[in-house]
Amino acid sequence: MRLTRSQLHCYRSDGLVFLPELFSAAEVAALYVEQELLFRQVLDTHLRADSGEFLGTTAMQRHSELFARLLSDERLLTLAEQLLGGPLYCHQYKIILKQPFGRLSLPWHQDYAPWKLHDGMPQPRAVSIGIYLDEINEFNGPIVYIPGSHRDGLIDYEVLEVPGTTPIPSLSDMTVSQLAARGGLVAPKGPPGSVTIFDSCIAHASGPNLSPFPRHLVYLSYNRVDNAITRPTRAEHFAARDFTPLSPAPASALLEPGAA
Amino acid sequence: MRLTRSQLHCYRSDGLVFLPELFSAAEVAALYVEQELLFRQVLDTHLRADSGEFLGTTAMQRHSELFARLLSDERLLTLAEQLLGGPLYCHQYKIILKQPFGRLSLPWHQDYAPWKLHDGMPQPRAVSIGIYLDEINEFNGPIVYIPGSHRDGLIDYEVLEVPGTTPIPSLSDMTVSQLAARGGLVAPKGPPGSVTIFDSCIAHASGPNLSPFPRHLVYLSYNRVDNAITRPTRAEHFAARDFTPLSPAPASALLEPGAA
Repeated sequence: MRLTRSQLHCYRSDGLVFLPELFSAAEVAALYVEQELLFRQVLDTHLRADSGEFLGTTAMQRHSELFARLLSDERLLTLAEQLLGGPLYCHQYKIILKQPFGRLSLPWHQDYAPWKLHDGMPQPRAVSIGIYLDEINEFNGPIVYIPGSHRDGLIDYEVLEVPGTTPIPSLSDMTVSQLAARGGLVAPKGPPGSVTIFDSCIAHASGPNLSPFPRHLVYLSYNRVDNAITRPTRAEHFAARDFTPLSPAPASALLEPGAA
Repeated sequence: MRLTRSQLHCYRSDGLVFLPELFSAAEVAALYVEQELLFRQVLDTHLRADSGEFLGTTAMQRHSELFARLLSDERLLTLAEQLLGGPLYCHQYKIILKQPFGRLSLPWHQDYAPWKLHDGMPQPRAVSIGIYLDEINEFNGPIVYIPGSHRDGLIDYEVLEVPGTTPIPSLSDMTVSQLAARGGLVAPKGPPGSVTIFDSCIAHASGPNLSPFPRHLVYLSYNRVDNAITRPTRAEHFAARDFTPLSPAPASALLEPGAA
């Protein structure tokens, strides 16, 4: 799996690229069942808002062989290698839920800001991939990005508390206004199995889920091994300490590991 | 101004109809300037959240001749008469603002519920019109409707407190899930000057404005004179007591009243 020249151009220019239905319905179904099993377990990696709203879980590779295999799936890993170069490891791996009528929203931020602030990641040489386990539409709290904002690198931020997760260094209204005046806003929407790949410096945010439709989203962040974090200050399920390079596995191995 | 047969069918079936750019850029510009002047005045009809966020103002016809003329504009009034029959008066007339990065959101509700509960409106023989003074897009908190939900008439509700306005009788998650499973969700988006006309029993909600783009929206609700409210319990700027039938004025009179 490699991006085409025009997809690559889009990624470099906008800081994100959307790939509809990269995963099959059967694969999404398997991942969906697996996450439901995990959510029912008592795990120290579960995320919960102060209100009690369940927000998802982290360090998926610890809990599930299926999710561990997804991490090495060539459709994601080869593609990330194409973007970042060099051997990669997984810095963060989580499922974030927006429950029907849920309140979870995320302020405008760049992913790299907490990775530098909380984890000591030297450079923004990381990429995140969002895998849609539900259809994402305009009603269930899609992520909104500012195309081109990654080209400004790390931007001045203020630190906001968000229940259920570590404090988020977030962007001021003035900064977002300036970035959006230049690049506009986009919110990639699509069926389950679709994927958005985005730069660690792209500004993004998301509102609450106003709808009766759940929004389950797997987030997977790859980082270059030679850019491994140097000063972690939070739990390992927010910032992995295992920098072993990942090797791509064929797509067919996701559901049939024995047959590969 | 009358709805076509297919627009009328759409309104009866879905409970709403969207008319893009019903008002000209010059008209929108004049209304925009006028509202800014009103917002700067100290008015007892201003709406404000507990946080201090300014949410708009009501009883527009009291404050401004331009807005008073808009109330009788044939493009709105003749159309409402087509839908409701009989002579009409204006029950509510307000501008609701969603400021850039504002927090204002509205729970799932039917407009008729508070009109019956707080004002004693006998029947749901009223129609609301939203006039877009800004572009409404997917990012600045568009209103989300459940098509067809008006056909259920008044639905059981619970009463929620919303800062800056009177308590809103709102629909339960279960009710909204059932209605949306049947009718889906729509959020009409369009340029300034566009209009959404909606039944007083259609279920709708809206999320916060995540974007740097303001969302100014004029809401105008017509009611049949023979359906006038009988038991008002709140201030007149939330529920008009003047039931004088309105007479349509030509569209050209909006900006040039003398020339009409």
